[in-house]
Amino acid sequence: MSDKNKKPQKLKARLPRGFVDREAADIRAANQMMETIREVYERYGFDPIETPLFEYTDALGKFLPDSDRPNEGVFSLQDDDDQWMSLRYDLTAPMARHVAENFQEIQLPFRTYRAGYVFRNEKPGPGRFRQFMQFDADTVGAPGVQSDAEMCMMMADTLEALGIKRGDYVIRVNNRKVFDGVLDSIGLSGDENAAQRLNVLRAIDKLDKFGLDGVKLLLGAGRKDDSGDFTRGAGLNDTQIQSVLSYLSDDDFYPSSDLYVQGQSELMQIEQLVTAAGYQSDRIKIDPSVIRGLEYYTGPVYEAELTFDVTNEKGEKVVFGSVGGGGRYDGLVSRFMGQPVPATGFSIGVSRLMTALKNLGKLGQDEVLGPVLVTVMDGDVESMGRYQRFTQALRAEGIRAEMYQGNWKKFGNQLKYADRRNAPIAIIQGGDERAQGVVQIKDLIEGKRLSGEITDNAEWREARVAQEVVAEADLVAKVKEILAAQAEDRRRAKGV
Amino acid sequence: MSDKNKKPQKLKARLPRGFVDREAADIRAANQMMETIREVYERYGFDPIETPLFEYTDALGKFLPDSDRPNEGVFSLQDDDDQWMSLRYDLTAPMARHVAENFQEIQLPFRTYRAGYVFRNEKPGPGRFRQFMQFDADTVGAPGVQSDAEMCMMMADTLEALGIKRGDYVIRVNNRKVFDGVLDSIGLSGDENAAQRLNVLRAIDKLDKFGLDGVKLLLGAGRKDDSGDFTRGAGLNDTQIQSVLSYLSDDDFYPSSDLYVQGQSELMQIEQLVTAAGYQSDRIKIDPSVIRGLEYYTGPVYEAELTFDVTNEKGEKVVFGSVGGGGRYDGLVSRFMGQPVPATGFSIGVSRLMTALKNLGKLGQDEVLGPVLVTVMDGDVESMGRYQRFTQALRAEGIRAEMYQGNWKKFGNQLKYADRRNAPIAIIQGGDERAQGVVQIKDLIEGKRLSGEITDNAEWREARVAQEVVAEADLVAKVKEILAAQAEDRRRAKGV
Repeated sequence: MSDKNKKPQKLKARLPRGFVDREAADIRAANQMMETIREVYERYGFDPIETPLFEYTDALGKFLPDSDRPNEGVFSLQDDDDQWMSLRYDLTAPMARHVAENFQEIQLPFRTYRAGYVFRNEKPGPGRFRQFMQFDADTVGAPGVQSDAEMCMMMADTLEALGIKRGDYVIRVNNRKVFDGVLDSIGLSGDENAAQRLNVLRAIDKLDKFGLDGVKLLLGAGRKDDSGDFTRGAGLNDTQIQSVLSYLSDDDFYPSSDLYVQGQSELMQIEQLVTAAGYQSDRIKIDPSVIRGLEYYTGPVYEAELTFDVTNEKGEKVVFGSVGGGGRYDGLVSRFMGQPVPATGFSIGVSRLMTALKNLGKLGQDEVLGPVLVTVMDGDVESMGRYQRFTQALRAEGIRAEMYQGNWKKFGNQLKYADRRNAPIAIIQGGDERAQGVVQIKDLIEGKRLSGEITDNAEWREARVAQEVVAEADLVAKVKEILAAQAEDRRRAKGV
Repeated sequence: MSDKNKKPQKLKARLPRGFVDREAADIRAANQMMETIREVYERYGFDPIETPLFEYTDALGKFLPDSDRPNEGVFSLQDDDDQWMSLRYDLTAPMARHVAENFQEIQLPFRTYRAGYVFRNEKPGPGRFRQFMQFDADTVGAPGVQSDAEMCMMMADTLEALGIKRGDYVIRVNNRKVFDGVLDSIGLSGDENAAQRLNVLRAIDKLDKFGLDGVKLLLGAGRKDDSGDFTRGAGLNDTQIQSVLSYLSDDDFYPSSDLYVQGQSELMQIEQLVTAAGYQSDRIKIDPSVIRGLEYYTGPVYEAELTFDVTNEKGEKVVFGSVGGGGRYDGLVSRFMGQPVPATGFSIGVSRLMTALKNLGKLGQDEVLGPVLVTVMDGDVESMGRYQRFTQALRAEGIRAEMYQGNWKKFGNQLKYADRRNAPIAIIQGGDERAQGVVQIKDLIEGKRLSGEITDNAEWREARVAQEVVAEADLVAKVKEILAAQAEDRRRAKGV
C-alpha cells in the first residue's frame, strides 16, 4: 500500500494444495446437516465441548493410520519455548487430553460431542483434503459394552434423522479383542509382536480396497500395485495367513484364545442389547471384517456404512461405503493418568456424509431468498439517503433487502446483479417518481415467468402484474404482499 | 498402547500457552449470539463464505498492527514444496485472496460474511489468546461511501439485536484520508515518509490507552512506561506534534490539503446518509480520534464502542470500549489484480462481545434441560436391554434421555450423576418392580424442592408427588406429564 510509485510484483492469488474455499450453498447445507446431527446427540444426553486447534505434539500421540514415520501426517511447529505443537489430526486425542487435564472437576461418565476442523499433512488428492471437518461423540468413564451399543444406535438414529432410509445403511460392529485373539492364536501376542500386529491390522483394513487376494499379499511378502509401487507386507507365513483369511471369510474358525472368546461374548451382548431396544441386524450387524485403521482401539469397533451404489471416478458401480466410525479406546485417557479410564466414541466425516446426502437428494438445499434490491437512479447524497431509507424500512420489517452498492451509473449492471443474486423484487425511483412521491416495484420472478425465461406449472392462476407503482408510504406493505404471493407460488409448485 | 510392559513416562495433560478449551454453556451462548448476528447480516443481503485456516504467507501480507518485524505475530511453516504457509491472522486478507482468485465468476458487489478462528503468534495474557474468533462482513466492488454508511448502520443494528440498548453503544466514524491530509499538511506525504506515517498512526491509536500526554511523547522522541520499557516515538518536531494534537483535540484546525478536504466531505456524506435512514449521532458519530491500527485502510474507518462502565482488573471504572470495527481497504484485493477493487468491511471480536453481553446480563444463558436418567439396578444383559428399551422409547418421543453408563453398582454414584447433570427425572426399576411390570419415576426437581434444597416462589400450588410408580406401558406418557409440569413451574417462576 505504502509503495505506490514502485511497480509492485503482482501477487498470485492461490491456496496451498489440499485446501478449499466454501460457498454459501455448501455452508448452509452443512450447517443444516450438522444441526440435525446435534439434535440427535443432544437427545441422547450429550453436551458440546470444544478444544483449540493446537495441542502439544506429545499429547496428540502418534496414532495416525498409514503413517509409520513419526510426525509425518501432522502439521507441527516449534513454539518460542522450544516445545513442539501440532494441529490436531482428529478430535479424539484432544478430548482425551481435556478429560485428563480436568479430571478432578469432571463428572464421569462424561458424554460430549464436538464438530471441528482437523488437519492432515498428507498428499492431497481427489476428495482428499488437508483440512476437513469431523463430528464426534464420546462417552468417557463408561466401562461396559452398553456404551458401545448406545454409540451404534446413535449412529443409526443420526443417519435416519438425516433422511437415509432403513436398508440404505448398516452399522457394522466388530471387536478388536476378537482380532487380537486371532493373532494370539497364531503366535503374534506380546509386545515384541506389536509392530507386526499393526501391519496385519493395516493389511486387513484394505479389504474393501483390494479384496481378499490383495489382503493375502499384504499379509505375506507384500503387494505391487498397478503403477509398480511395492508395499511391503506383514511377513506372515502361509499357515498364519490361512488362519487370518479363514477368520475374515467367516468360515468355521475358532481360535483357542481367551481374548477371542471374551471379544465374541462382548459382541453377543451388544447384539442382545440393541435387539432389545428394537435395532435388528438390518441396522446394526456384527461383522468380522470391520477393522478400523487406528491403533488405539481396545475393544468394540463400529463403522457406519452406506450400502447403496454410486458410480466412482472410473465409471464403476460401487457401494458408497463408510461415512464414519469409532470404537473403544480404554488406553487413550490413561496415557496421562495413573489409572484406567475406559472410553468409547465415534467420528463422522462431515464432507463425506454431505456427498452421500447429495447423492440421495437429501441435502438441505432450501432456496435462500435473495435480497429485495433497491436500485439507485440518482447518485446525489439526498437521493441516496432516500434509497437507504427505503432499504432500512424494509429491513426493519424483517425483509432481506439491500441498496445497490456498485457503480450505479450503468442501470443494466444493477438488473444483472439482481438476476445473479436471485433478487425477488426490485425497487426503482427516478426523478419523475420522486416528484410524485411514488416508487416502482418490479416483481422479478413474475417478470421472468411472463417473459418465458422460467416456466412453472402454475396454470391454476392468472398472471400477476409484474410491475406496479405505489405511494412511498405503501412500499413496505406492497413488497410484503408480493413476497407472500411468490411464497404461495413456490408452495403450490412443490405440491405441498 | 503397544508397549504394555515398559513403564511408560506419564504424559502431562496441558495446552500450549494462549489456547483454551470451551465448555457447553459458553459454546451454546456463543452459538446463540452468532446466530443473531448472522440473522442481521442475512437481512442486509450478505451471504456466507468460508476460507481455510492456511494461506500462503505472501498472500496474507504483513498488515498486523504492533508488529514491525516480518513474520512476527503469525504461525508459519514451510510446506513440502518449500513454500511458506501461515495460519490466517484475520478474515480480511483471506477474503481478498478469495475474491482475486475467483474474480471472473464473482458478481460484484460481492457481499459476504464469515465467522472463524484466527491465530496470532503473540505473547498471551489475560483475555489475550493465540486463537480467537472473529465475525466479519464485507462488500467488495463498492466504491461509494454509501457502503461505509451501510456498514455503520449494520453494526448498530447488530448491537441492538443482541440486546444492547441505544445509548449503551456508539459507532464512531473517521476517515483515513482526513488523517493522511493532516500528515500531508505537516510535510509527511509521499512514499519516503510511509514508515513515519505508520508510526504516527500507531501512536495516535494509543490515545485510549495513554491519553493525549502519552500520545504526545510517542509522536516525539518516545515514551517510557511504568516498567521502564522505552517505546521509540515517531520523531516529529514540536510544530508537527502541535498540529497532530490540535487535530485530535478537535480544535479549529483546518490543514491545507486536498486529501483532508475530500476526507471531510466523505464524512459529511456518511452523516447525511445515515441520518436520512434514521440513525442520529447518538448511534453513529463522526469522531476524529478513531484511527484503527491496521495499515491497509484507505478511506472511512469505523469502530463499534460500548459506552457503559465496567470495572477493570485494577478496580477502576472504565468505559467498556471497542467490540469491533473496520474500514475501507481499496488496495487489498488489487494487490493481486491489475485493476482497482474498492472494498469496505468490519470485524467483530466474538469473545470480547460475549464478555460485554455477559456484563449486561444479555448473554443467552437459556437453561438446557439435562437428560432423563434411566438408572441401572441390575447388570445382566436382559435387564440392561430393558433399560435401554425404556431409554430409546423416551428418545423416540423427542425426550432427552440416557441410561447410566458408568459403573452401575454404586447407586449413590448414579444419583450424584443425575444431580450434576441436572437430570429432571430418574427412572428406576429393580427386581420387585420388574416382577410387577412397573417402573418408579422420580421427579428430581420436585424432590429437591420438597427437601428444601432449592426454594422457589411457587406458593401458588400444592406440592407434586415427587415419586410415582406406573406401569411400564405408561412410562413415556408419565415422563411427558412431569416434564410439562416442570416447564410450567419454570414459566411461572419467571413470571412470564
